Amino acid sequence: MRELIIGGARSGKSALAERRASEGGRQVVYLATAQALDGEMARRIAHHRQRRSADWGLVEEPIDLAGALRRHAAPGVCLLVDCLTLWLSNLLFAGAAARQVEAGASVDCPLLAGATAALIETLPQLPGQIILVSNEVGWGGVPMAALARLFADEQGRLNQRVAAVCDRVTLVVAGLPLTLR
Amino acid sequence: MRELIIGGARSGKSALAERRASEGGRQVVYLATAQALDGEMARRIAHHRQRRSADWGLVEEPIDLAGALRRHAAPGVCLLVDCLTLWLSNLLFAGAAARQVEAGASVDCPLLAGATAALIETLPQLPGQIILVSNEVGWGGVPMAALARLFADEQGRLNQRVAAVCDRVTLVVAGLPLTLR
Amino acid sequence: MRELIIGGARSGKSALAERRASEGGRQVVYLATAQALDGEMARRIAHHRQRRSADWGLVEEPIDLAGALRRHAAPGVCLLVDCLTLWLSNLLFAGAAARQVEAGASVDCPLLAGATAALIETLPQLPGQIILVSNEVGWGGVPMAALARLFADEQGRLNQRVAAVCDRVTLVVAGLPLTLR
Repeated sequence: MRELIIGGARSGKSALAERRASEGGRQVVYLATAQALDGEMARRIAHHRQRRSADWGLVEEPIDLAGALRRHAAPGVCLLVDCLTLWLSNLLFAGAAARQVEAGASVDCPLLAGATAALIETLPQLPGQIILVSNEVGWGGVPMAALARLFADEQGRLNQRVAAVCDRVTLVVAGLPLTLR
Repeated sequence: MRELIIGGARSGKSALAERRASEGGRQVVYLATAQALDGEMARRIAHHRQRRSADWGLVEEPIDLAGALRRHAAPGVCLLVDCLTLWLSNLLFAGAAARQVEAGASVDCPLLAGATAALIETLPQLPGQIILVSNEVGWGGVPMAALARLFADEQGRLNQRVAAVCDRVTLVVAGLPLTLR
Repeated sequence: MRELIIGGARSGKSALAERRASEGGRQVVYLATAQALDGEMARRIAHHRQRRSADWGLVEEPIDLAGALRRHAAPGVCLLVDCLTLWLSNLLFAGAAARQVEAGASVDCPLLAGATAALIETLPQLPGQIILVSNEVGWGGVPMAALARLFADEQGRLNQRVAAVCDRVTLVVAGLPLTLR
């Protein structure tokens, strides 16, 4: 059972994912992709941490998501990945893509391409329950900055590809779920 | 009967709200939160005004929304609040929050926190029909400006909290309603 | 049979439109509104071209969309217009509107008004199948730039008006269709 939960900023998607994880009856392992690189990010991470149940496991993996999923997935486990958007951001900034785009060059991001391909290949093979949280970011018009356009394109493509290998896809709006599949 | 109508810019949410208000059979009172601070805002207000029925009442309240709702709600009245997004903007700029964020400080907005708590507490107690219009603003990626990030966060939280105390929640896309609850 | 397919950037709306066109059993004519004004646009156009069937017709028309639709619509033809967002952008930049707004003046765009009115009048009269692709751009908050605000307003209005004369309206999210009408 694989589920993708998507929505805009503060749409309630993480809270829905956590509710679904709690209700699934499995041991929940929270797979965090966030890196506390500044004070604002640290506050957002702390906000999420406060809300989580104390008996949940925690794995932190900013880059090798497919590897972390393979290592921790098990029949009795629910892996909650929060979120694919920060993971995408980590991949773009860890590799050369962000710097290339800012310098006006065309984009080539083998790290991103490889990590995404590994995720899409890995997901259907995993035992247990997998819940993935991701942002919708392409509904605000074409951004002025080339890097923001690249990010919106990659996020849109990633959401499409992950949705295609999930059993259930849910859009969250104002805290309310809308089933897309 | 409380309804939240949400959507993007020019999605047709105000027109839907006005239609629902007209069809409800009650005396309609339009509760405007807009302030005509510049020419563009004045044009937008005039555009809304032209469309409204001449026999509707009008109340203007940029800040104390809970107070205005309590004063004007009645069994035979439909209060149409347009919109929560401008109200949120008024609260952020009337208080110190916007200036704090622009100066790089962390955010503390007692005016916003108090006004929001009052609204959420007041809504379930009101007689008659209440229709609230609000924008979805968090679907365009993470804004570059700290103030825009704060606004998207607060708007998302507000929409979730108001939706939680409404009987009906409708998302409007290209003028077409999609029932979320 | 007229269908409007809308969604955010990289939501899969063009792919869905192409699938629907292929399945319709008619001769497909792709009506492209894009102009390859820079390298990034040229790459996006090439990406779309690769995916299309070789036996589809191609018409390129950046401005006079109603005229092109009238000339090419026929009972045995499916016209696939991709997309209304680039067309709107062409109209705003070909006329004086974009320059007026950037100079701080109020907006008056007779080219846009005339072309939009012609489209809305023409659509219900066309034989055969028409599929129109358009972007949702107003879900990311109020843009800082006046031109971006104008664009979001005009795009929102256009989507509402086109939706009102279509038999079917589909929102695409993460590659998955959501029927609005």
